[in-house]
Amino acid sequence: MKQKTERRNFIKSSLLALSGAIFYKSKLAANANYDVDSSTGALLHTPNDTLNVIHNLHTTHGNFSHKEIPEADLEQIRLASVHGANSSNMQTYSIILVKDRQKIKDITTYEGSALFLFCVDFNRLIDCAKQLGHAYYPDNMTNFVTASINTTIAAQTAVIAAQSMGLDTLLTNGIHRGDMQRVWDILELPQEKCFPLIALVLGYATEEPLYHAGRLDGVGIFHEEKYHKLTTEEINEIIATYDNKEKHLGLYENWDQDGHAHYLDWLHSYWLGRASEPTKSETAVFSFIKRSGFVES
Amino acid sequence: MKQKTERRNFIKSSLLALSGAIFYKSKLAANANYDVDSSTGALLHTPNDTLNVIHNLHTTHGNFSHKEIPEADLEQIRLASVHGANSSNMQTYSIILVKDRQKIKDITTYEGSALFLFCVDFNRLIDCAKQLGHAYYPDNMTNFVTASINTTIAAQTAVIAAQSMGLDTLLTNGIHRGDMQRVWDILELPQEKCFPLIALVLGYATEEPLYHAGRLDGVGIFHEEKYHKLTTEEINEIIATYDNKEKHLGLYENWDQDGHAHYLDWLHSYWLGRASEPTKSETAVFSFIKRSGFVES
Repeated sequence: MKQKTERRNFIKSSLLALSGAIFYKSKLAANANYDVDSSTGALLHTPNDTLNVIHNLHTTHGNFSHKEIPEADLEQIRLASVHGANSSNMQTYSIILVKDRQKIKDITTYEGSALFLFCVDFNRLIDCAKQLGHAYYPDNMTNFVTASINTTIAAQTAVIAAQSMGLDTLLTNGIHRGDMQRVWDILELPQEKCFPLIALVLGYATEEPLYHAGRLDGVGIFHEEKYHKLTTEEINEIIATYDNKEKHLGLYENWDQDGHAHYLDWLHSYWLGRASEPTKSETAVFSFIKRSGFVES
Repeated sequence: MKQKTERRNFIKSSLLALSGAIFYKSKLAANANYDVDSSTGALLHTPNDTLNVIHNLHTTHGNFSHKEIPEADLEQIRLASVHGANSSNMQTYSIILVKDRQKIKDITTYEGSALFLFCVDFNRLIDCAKQLGHAYYPDNMTNFVTASINTTIAAQTAVIAAQSMGLDTLLTNGIHRGDMQRVWDILELPQEKCFPLIALVLGYATEEPLYHAGRLDGVGIFHEEKYHKLTTEEINEIIATYDNKEKHLGLYENWDQDGHAHYLDWLHSYWLGRASEPTKSETAVFSFIKRSGFVES
């Protein structure tokens, strides 16, 4: 029982759909051009404002205030979002701005002042092709993967634009949890050739976080010239890095109060429970990608 | 014959794996806070340096010089890349830095000073789980889609970091063209639970482009509160927007010299030829996603 209640509270208070931010910069700081706080090791200056924004990226876990976002700011983010690269400049996405707060909650399970929903979408291109008498069949997984990359690039560009303007953000794949059909129903998405990929909730956090989530930024993430298979020693180092609370890599800081020896014990026995066995049936995401017509036979 | 030679030259000179940049800002400019060049309609100022970087994002189409990138700059980009959001802070990616120029060409088909290859990768997490005695099966399309989002977020964060530092970039899915097995072979990628998703080629362009590629940034891309199905009139407007050469939306500026009435005629009859019929057999991308173990039965 304790575990169930705790799990529910945990999910309610801090479900990290997509968790935020930055922390450990010792390796960078070893380079000559950067100043470092000698007590914390934190980087004091990055070479430009954009890198500062990137180093300060962080996720607001649903605690957005009721303050409205100025229309000009939303427009700025919207126009920024399309400037990322995209394959053959075909912009195989649609970006839906939602300001109705109840709708935002129904779609993402989170509250916020505005939502940008980034969808893989070929319907505009198909409509134009038909109008000109061309047959066009974006009907396979290559189309889906390429369009997903285009779509995610737009979403992350919007995140960086928003945070540069002082807005708080939450990127979430909450749209893929629960009954996914709701997203199609609420937003009247086309059933074919359109797939809601990633949601960006925007607003103003009611309070600053105590810390920004950290990141692994060494061996196992970065490889040189070719893929490096981890040694047992390196695996143990990574496990220990997750256990180092000062690095804030975990979703839950009190994992050790639950009798777990390591943070990753908590993650696997508790958070990733369903993934401890092979997948038994088709996931909803795959079913909806199929229904959208992006899986060749 | 003419068409074949022309196609080859076109591909050689300007294959837009993932094309760049920004152009039309009239809608934004309609807001009060921004100055506009009255002759061109271009935005003169954006509210901060980061937005300036975003509005100036553009792709270098392979014309990189032989100049080396300072090690500190590569390190800065590498560390910036991990600061994007990622699901449950599990960082389900690997980032491989390649400086061997021949290898870069063999992998991407492009030349450049450095390559960051962003791979969906669960091997680090699986290794750690095994070491601690946990079973972990990231074996379905939901895992793949979620990890692809994480991986692309890292890639676009790296692009914005690099361009803020004055580097030129090319994001390409060239790794998915030709014999994909070469990427596994050259970089010794694990056969399972690892998939090379997107490549970022970095360097210094030998010359500035004459213009930055434009973007559609109106109806059909942006939707309000719900999905808007295009009217015939709107479809015709989008077709006309592609035909407006001043917007630089096309991959090829001389489409009308080839007897096409519209840019999209050129795109469909020439560039997207293979997509004019339904996909007949499994694409290589889907085959490799399956082999990587990300497709549930």
